[in-house]
Amino acid sequence: MSDRPELESARYAYEGLERVIHEKARLGILTSLATNAEGLRFAELKRLCALTDGNLNRHLRALAEASLVVVDKVGEGRGSTTSVRLTETGRQRFIEYLDELQRVVADARPATQRLARQS
Amino acid sequence: MSDRPELESARYAYEGLERVIHEKARLGILTSLATNAEGLRFAELKRLCALTDGNLNRHLRALAEASLVVVDKVGEGRGSTTSVRLTETGRQRFIEYLDELQRVVADARPATQRLARQS
Repeated sequence: MSDRPELESARYAYEGLERVIHEKARLGILTSLATNAEGLRFAELKRLCALTDGNLNRHLRALAEASLVVVDKVGEGRGSTTSVRLTETGRQRFIEYLDELQRVVADARPATQRLARQS
Repeated sequence: MSDRPELESARYAYEGLERVIHEKARLGILTSLATNAEGLRFAELKRLCALTDGNLNRHLRALAEASLVVVDKVGEGRGSTTSVRLTETGRQRFIEYLDELQRVVADARPATQRLARQS
């Protein structure tokens, strides 16, 4: 550890901000699912995250490919519903991501306040 | 306010996660600059954020276009250095962004812990 941690190599690289999670809409989707442990229907997720069908579908595909969520179709045709839930892998990787996010806030917030006092 | 805030419309849309700031590398750049109020040289920023010349240049251009940072070239030719600092606009918008980031953590962290207890 150097005397001036704010100048350490890669000090602010934030490698833990995993790309598949860091997208703004996906943060909303994962938080919605963490908050609703029994899972959510497609229409509920869409409303909670203020997303279009197309965008929600696209993000769910990416999250499912990364094994972070499971998407289940229940029923057939017009009566079918889609239900989505967080996997245990998803929960654990989201926790690790949140730890790194917390580090960003902890690094940046005191610094922005110091700057305010100087100006 | 509904009885169940976790089901409110657009509850997890996180509109405050401004796109120009939310990119992982830019979070590092802005945090580095907030932490080093007098500004940083290009080479220092590159090292702190573990970025290539090309990537750092690209991100600085986007941040400067949004008036969040100022990039100054000092000197000429091989002896020239590039110095970067946060603008007052940049500082204020970064604070607003950090407020929203804090909301994500506050929403998501207790939820991921509740899930752990249930499984």
